Amino acid sequence: MIIRRKAREIMVGDVKIGGDAPVSIQSMAKVKTSDMKAVVSQIKALEACGCEIVRVAVKNMSDAAAIKEIKRKIRIPLVADIHFDYRLALKAIEGGADKIRLNPGNIRKREEVAAVVRAAKRARIPIRIGVNSGSVFTHDARRTTHNESALIKSALRYIKLFEEMEFRDIIVSLKSSDVVSTVEAYRMISGLCDYPLHLGVTASGSYDQGIVKSAIGIGGLLLDGIGDTIRVSLTGDPAEEVIAAKRILGALGLRKFGHEIISCPTCGRCQVDLMKIVEQLENAIHTTRDTRPDKPLTIAVMGCEVNGPGEAMVADIGLAAGKGQGALFKKGKIIKRVKEKDFVKEIMGLLKLAVGSR
Amino acid sequence: MIIRRKAREIMVGDVKIGGDAPVSIQSMAKVKTSDMKAVVSQIKALEACGCEIVRVAVKNMSDAAAIKEIKRKIRIPLVADIHFDYRLALKAIEGGADKIRLNPGNIRKREEVAAVVRAAKRARIPIRIGVNSGSVFTHDARRTTHNESALIKSALRYIKLFEEMEFRDIIVSLKSSDVVSTVEAYRMISGLCDYPLHLGVTASGSYDQGIVKSAIGIGGLLLDGIGDTIRVSLTGDPAEEVIAAKRILGALGLRKFGHEIISCPTCGRCQVDLMKIVEQLENAIHTTRDTRPDKPLTIAVMGCEVNGPGEAMVADIGLAAGKGQGALFKKGKIIKRVKEKDFVKEIMGLLKLAVGSR
Repeated sequence: MIIRRKAREIMVGDVKIGGDAPVSIQSMAKVKTSDMKAVVSQIKALEACGCEIVRVAVKNMSDAAAIKEIKRKIRIPLVADIHFDYRLALKAIEGGADKIRLNPGNIRKREEVAAVVRAAKRARIPIRIGVNSGSVFTHDARRTTHNESALIKSALRYIKLFEEMEFRDIIVSLKSSDVVSTVEAYRMISGLCDYPLHLGVTASGSYDQGIVKSAIGIGGLLLDGIGDTIRVSLTGDPAEEVIAAKRILGALGLRKFGHEIISCPTCGRCQVDLMKIVEQLENAIHTTRDTRPDKPLTIAVMGCEVNGPGEAMVADIGLAAGKGQGALFKKGKIIKRVKEKDFVKEIMGLLKLAVGSR
Repeated sequence: MIIRRKAREIMVGDVKIGGDAPVSIQSMAKVKTSDMKAVVSQIKALEACGCEIVRVAVKNMSDAAAIKEIKRKIRIPLVADIHFDYRLALKAIEGGADKIRLNPGNIRKREEVAAVVRAAKRARIPIRIGVNSGSVFTHDARRTTHNESALIKSALRYIKLFEEMEFRDIIVSLKSSDVVSTVEAYRMISGLCDYPLHLGVTASGSYDQGIVKSAIGIGGLLLDGIGDTIRVSLTGDPAEEVIAAKRILGALGLRKFGHEIISCPTCGRCQVDLMKIVEQLENAIHTTRDTRPDKPLTIAVMGCEVNGPGEAMVADIGLAAGKGQGALFKKGKIIKRVKEKDFVKEIMGLLKLAVGSR
């Protein structure tokens, strides 16, 4: 069982981060923020697939000015991503941004940071102190580094300034493109403050590599109870980031998003076409509206008698295959023998029954 | 930096596990072991993509008898997967298996286990004590469980028997289909013995879900230095398991398999088509023989000025994009400005130069 670190409660719009809130899922729009049609359409797609907080890049004043109208057209909280120019943050706050992300690596003047903190305080919105290995400064030089203590130092400098101004609506992130540095940095900061932590591995690459880096980095931290909100960064469609985030949280049992299929890798013992069966089952669940993913079940589909009965028994619905047929389990008991060609149909029947669909 | 747990050195054929050996990659054939043509062809495909140890299911005496001939036709060490019937292990050892996997959950009679240990000792091959949540017994009943202490107890019972027979050529695995239980179990056992640990999350499902569960479970343990050899279980082509295993080890810097691309997720700041560029670059690297994946480099391809220069600077080759063009970095220094259409060509040029290809 995962015992989560106790973090201060922060509200981002109507989404709670920290406290007893579930780990929330964030993503980021990847089109120009001032291109209203494109950005709203992308955010609506993200909302539809389960994104709970969305961020937009604020590169210039047109982007900052767009915040107000975007806010009117979307449902989930909107975060303004600010670099270099603190005035973009002020404009975004004016436009109704629900959170500001500031990068300590590229907004360094005390009075500029203070101006943003004052505005956020007045607007009652939080600020994420977003440190990134690509833009962190070492203490001695204008050089970037993946060293975790440089990431920490950068965050602590901002935290001290914020706290001096009695501003504690803070969320912290310490993303590195190196998985091990990312994990080390978050582990360190988790003991140094009680602010909620926004987890992510930065610049993790395209899907196949990025998902592995993110799952290890984000998942490895969550395993130890560290992390309150997550963003999977992938060079690709942001909807993939949300789906990957759901898979990470689901794998750890921290949240449930639809039914979970437990299936064995198969081996020379297997006497049914398990890969095809699992694929068909996934498709059937995915395309059937009335399987109620809001009432998630565990479905074990196992290829033989070694681990089949065991896994099938502890799942809500289980199927342990033998030669061309299998034993169908419901809540730990065998209810009948089923032919291979009927596996998917029978499981789907039990599934619909179990979730009380129409 | 990852500090690895010190594990006893065990040889599986010519592959060392534990000691100072790199974390090795295993997979399993998924066709009938007695179907010589199919099994050898699948193992050769696994060898070709980097599998270092391969396991086959031994369901019956025909499978056990096939070991001898399979051994003659493949290069990597061969492991016989034994359940229920200890005599299959004896036959596999006779056939020249390089390691035996025994499941304490389904071979429980002391004299039967002892017979296998004696034979392994004579043949000087190791035994993996392979506990699995689908077939572990609780101490009080014939019920399976995902409880990590049941997994541990099951392994310790075998370990005690093996040690009483002065047999210490042992590798241990404690796989659960639940990621958190898997991690907890391995963390516990890592302090209780010095035997090398074979990591895996069992029955993790098909590709997209299985890769996430495996990356968190296996990667989360490796982060803490736990684990000496890994097997990613996916309901799918075993070659995918090997590629996923490489990605996990690569992401943690424990091993390097080819060049690593660091690329940002892009956002509204990005003024080039980064997703397309990264895809083209991946394809170019993949299809060009002379980029020497045995001399792996880091290549950063970044979309803007926020983290672009920083990541490009620490990579071996870097490109930080601006509007329709970008700065090309080599070992931390900008060497020229490049137009967007030439990004891939220029990076590939530096890559071929750097690895000293023909």
